[in-house]
Amino acid sequence: MSGFHGVFPYLVSPVAADGTVMTGVLHDLVEHLVGAGVHGLTPLGSTGEFAYLANDQRFAVTRTVIAAAAGRVPVVAGVAATTVADAVAQTRVLVDEGVDGILAILEAYFPVPDAGVEDYFTAIAEAAGGRPVVLYTNPFFQRADLSLPVIERLSRIDNIRYIKDASGNTGRLLSIRRRTEGRMDVFAASAHIPACVMLIGGVGWMAGPACVVPGQSVALYEAARSGNWTRAMALQRDLWPLHELFARNSLAGCIKAALSLQGFDVGDPLPPQPSLDADARNEIAEVLRRLDAL
Amino acid sequence: MSGFHGVFPYLVSPVAADGTVMTGVLHDLVEHLVGAGVHGLTPLGSTGEFAYLANDQRFAVTRTVIAAAAGRVPVVAGVAATTVADAVAQTRVLVDEGVDGILAILEAYFPVPDAGVEDYFTAIAEAAGGRPVVLYTNPFFQRADLSLPVIERLSRIDNIRYIKDASGNTGRLLSIRRRTEGRMDVFAASAHIPACVMLIGGVGWMAGPACVVPGQSVALYEAARSGNWTRAMALQRDLWPLHELFARNSLAGCIKAALSLQGFDVGDPLPPQPSLDADARNEIAEVLRRLDAL
Amino acid sequence: MSGFHGVFPYLVSPVAADGTVMTGVLHDLVEHLVGAGVHGLTPLGSTGEFAYLANDQRFAVTRTVIAAAAGRVPVVAGVAATTVADAVAQTRVLVDEGVDGILAILEAYFPVPDAGVEDYFTAIAEAAGGRPVVLYTNPFFQRADLSLPVIERLSRIDNIRYIKDASGNTGRLLSIRRRTEGRMDVFAASAHIPACVMLIGGVGWMAGPACVVPGQSVALYEAARSGNWTRAMALQRDLWPLHELFARNSLAGCIKAALSLQGFDVGDPLPPQPSLDADARNEIAEVLRRLDAL
Amino acid sequence: MSGFHGVFPYLVSPVAADGTVMTGVLHDLVEHLVGAGVHGLTPLGSTGEFAYLANDQRFAVTRTVIAAAAGRVPVVAGVAATTVADAVAQTRVLVDEGVDGILAILEAYFPVPDAGVEDYFTAIAEAAGGRPVVLYTNPFFQRADLSLPVIERLSRIDNIRYIKDASGNTGRLLSIRRRTEGRMDVFAASAHIPACVMLIGGVGWMAGPACVVPGQSVALYEAARSGNWTRAMALQRDLWPLHELFARNSLAGCIKAALSLQGFDVGDPLPPQPSLDADARNEIAEVLRRLDAL
Repeated sequence: MSGFHGVFPYLVSPVAADGTVMTGVLHDLVEHLVGAGVHGLTPLGSTGEFAYLANDQRFAVTRTVIAAAAGRVPVVAGVAATTVADAVAQTRVLVDEGVDGILAILEAYFPVPDAGVEDYFTAIAEAAGGRPVVLYTNPFFQRADLSLPVIERLSRIDNIRYIKDASGNTGRLLSIRRRTEGRMDVFAASAHIPACVMLIGGVGWMAGPACVVPGQSVALYEAARSGNWTRAMALQRDLWPLHELFARNSLAGCIKAALSLQGFDVGDPLPPQPSLDADARNEIAEVLRRLDAL
Repeated sequence: MSGFHGVFPYLVSPVAADGTVMTGVLHDLVEHLVGAGVHGLTPLGSTGEFAYLANDQRFAVTRTVIAAAAGRVPVVAGVAATTVADAVAQTRVLVDEGVDGILAILEAYFPVPDAGVEDYFTAIAEAAGGRPVVLYTNPFFQRADLSLPVIERLSRIDNIRYIKDASGNTGRLLSIRRRTEGRMDVFAASAHIPACVMLIGGVGWMAGPACVVPGQSVALYEAARSGNWTRAMALQRDLWPLHELFARNSLAGCIKAALSLQGFDVGDPLPPQPSLDADARNEIAEVLRRLDAL
Repeated sequence: MSGFHGVFPYLVSPVAADGTVMTGVLHDLVEHLVGAGVHGLTPLGSTGEFAYLANDQRFAVTRTVIAAAAGRVPVVAGVAATTVADAVAQTRVLVDEGVDGILAILEAYFPVPDAGVEDYFTAIAEAAGGRPVVLYTNPFFQRADLSLPVIERLSRIDNIRYIKDASGNTGRLLSIRRRTEGRMDVFAASAHIPACVMLIGGVGWMAGPACVVPGQSVALYEAARSGNWTRAMALQRDLWPLHELFARNSLAGCIKAALSLQGFDVGDPLPPQPSLDADARNEIAEVLRRLDAL
Repeated sequence: MSGFHGVFPYLVSPVAADGTVMTGVLHDLVEHLVGAGVHGLTPLGSTGEFAYLANDQRFAVTRTVIAAAAGRVPVVAGVAATTVADAVAQTRVLVDEGVDGILAILEAYFPVPDAGVEDYFTAIAEAAGGRPVVLYTNPFFQRADLSLPVIERLSRIDNIRYIKDASGNTGRLLSIRRRTEGRMDVFAASAHIPACVMLIGGVGWMAGPACVVPGQSVALYEAARSGNWTRAMALQRDLWPLHELFARNSLAGCIKAALSLQGFDVGDPLPPQPSLDADARNEIAEVLRRLDAL
């Protein structure tokens, strides 16, 4: 199967109190995930706290991930900006660093009309120099939304090849697929049930929880991929308590806490984001243990 | 398989300009749907415009449906009220009329705390005299929401046996199932992809579109039920354009227009609800033709 | 000054456990309010729990209020429905009972397009037989909103003479006034600061809290009306804690509890609405005492 | 009257296509506004497109405004960040540049609990080295909200002296005043009617429209300040069409277009924000002409 597919963990961004990116632990995490069989890596998604990092911190994260992956799996890194100029500049740096694809995110303060949304993503696609672009839309945390007509028009740009929709509305994914089939593939996000997205023709998922249960996620993907839906649903049901737990707390805080429990000392989310309290940490530990992930 | 399961069309409520329920066409529609193999009938859901009917109109609708069904399939009728007293009174009338189950809907103007929500549904369950109750929650149109803890507590009442959640968030259905397994079963609504809800363990769907494509809906149900997911998804994909069309317009208006095109003269939605314009009618006709439903 | 103006308390609807309207206490309350100098009376607004009453209960409430007012102040009663037919029927009954004006409320389950909104209020205005109509819009609890263009068009109907907007956005009231000046006057609701609405040219307010502080409300109105803004703001500031308290709890529950404390045994809101707990009752008592209203 | 008070125009940020801040026109605009009698200047508010500028662009804007103001009126510049570290760093630079006060804005991607909100604003207040801090909250465009308890606690920090609330809910301002009187003063934002906020005890307003009608805004302020409410409301009514026009379009786009019409060549909003079309420009020109502002 060519093209991006499978399980792409949304990587955390480990940052020390003085703002330095902690490259050592990030390197170890990548090594661990690749070893567990994940199909790709996505630094600088929501879980990667892109909204809390300056551009030089973002580039340090991506550079480390690319080096650690060493070509074994594709690295699709997030670009997020409020202006076209900033998005294009970020994309060019990532391309120079050797990224395999771009996860394109539009931040906004004032609402953006459709024409502006198109301009933004088109400019990133051009700056990506032929590398595939994944559109990312998350109506819960972002102020700009990608309407179906805009998605359809953007799917006609050659290297805009994927979309990751975090709307929680799985029916919308089916509508996107019908409008873009043959030009654009769909990745699930944490807001969807991965097994359901696979059933309607998705090619995988990009999500934070895969950081802490990479092997279990790959097993679920393989079951769905081979059409073994009974097994897929059994694995899905086992994984769901982890999803529920993460949905109740700050996502970055949960994944960072879970990784710390697993021995990856990735620190806490950047203040004023809260770090998890002891109760939540205990709950996570218990769920991880039940999943043989601790 | 015991218990309610399969395709339960949400029936329209045909009402003449003078407020009379048009029992003839409703009788014909029921006959047609039972002939097409549906597993049950649900008058007085959203599609049935319960919010636009006085209690005597509601009872006339249910009485007609029960008579026409003649025991061949179960009739699960909607009860909707803002007060416990009204809900209990309606339930008693429906039970006297011979309904097989109650679809319980909480209307509200001011927000209702969890304890009030529980009281409301518990009172309906008691008044239902042992008949099964289906909880109905639709956060888009209703002001009261059913939280997971409330659903879990209500599932411990003997005859509260089903839930139909129209939140559009399929992950919530999986969470409901995990909390209530063995005590409560899940029906999909129009806001979900039926095939996905079947995959995660749902027992069927209650939805307006099944009124106009009953045979196709039953075929999809049978495919999913037997684990033939490839066929289920093929049928699901074919049916999706109808769903998209209905989601864009008023649901009651769409179903009534579609039934008129099919020869069931059920009239228009009650004013000031709009009737569909010619363009929308043509679009519906085209989609129905492609589905061999016209 | 001709036309409706001043303080119109939103009356509660006292209903016994068996559903009977308690006309005695309602009669006493009206007598008390008229004695305190209020300029009019509004049964069946939000505070009057219109959404929780059947039509015969509603008519019993209005009949009692009209009889008790005995022509001393105008009675403007609420009409609320989801259908044009029901609204027209209610209006006719109220006109026959001798109401002085109609507070027109559009309830909705599905969204209503502008044309339907206009049809609805136009039909009420026609049925009101020349009596003035007050448009009521409350985006917090109602599913239908009145857009500025619709309000402007409705203001051209002869007897649609007032609007009560509960949006909380006082700037919207100024925009309404600019568009409808000379044809329509503005009443404040609980969601606005009455002194501010008077400053921008409002003619008074229709609100639940005036039931429990009628004299203080009239004093505030008189100060604002005479341009004594310093005194108006002093009175307004004193009254504000009551507003804040009511905003935090269910409005009907608060007003009913406050009236009970004042000796009007109006009972509790209709279940499953909660009655106020002891803490909230104590807080209300304390605030009323500080306002010399207990 | 000591302390910040009166009309503080929210300045636009003129940025050339290559990202350079156009300091010449910004200098001219400041000169013009000070000449028109404004009481202070606020660069880097919403109208100043803070969300679209890198930190070095922000600092160039503030530096220019401070130099142009030359101590004649106070300059209160915006600090906006998602992290405490970035906010503190920005504040220190602005203090070094000689700013008179800080307008403190919390950006967020994930929701922030109250403790984090407090930490953020407290850290800015400490970094401001005794200069007054204005809290800014805008629930329409920001993901973090300032609750009343948090505002009350923050008002106890010595140099947190003001709040500018853009909620549109004027009643909330009255509640804030009651809780913080003597420690914190209130500025109106575009979402409120300035005359109403002055009536309830506000000390002025910080808003984009004052950039294009500075003299008219000062006249309104003076009328309200001296208790001449009749004159204040007459001026307020005349200015309202400008407010309505700006509320319908992108605020930054409107103010930039209006200033261009007035001869200040400040360019367009940063892409992908739209520039105003010809129709909107004509409408603005017409309204400005009626206000003798063109």
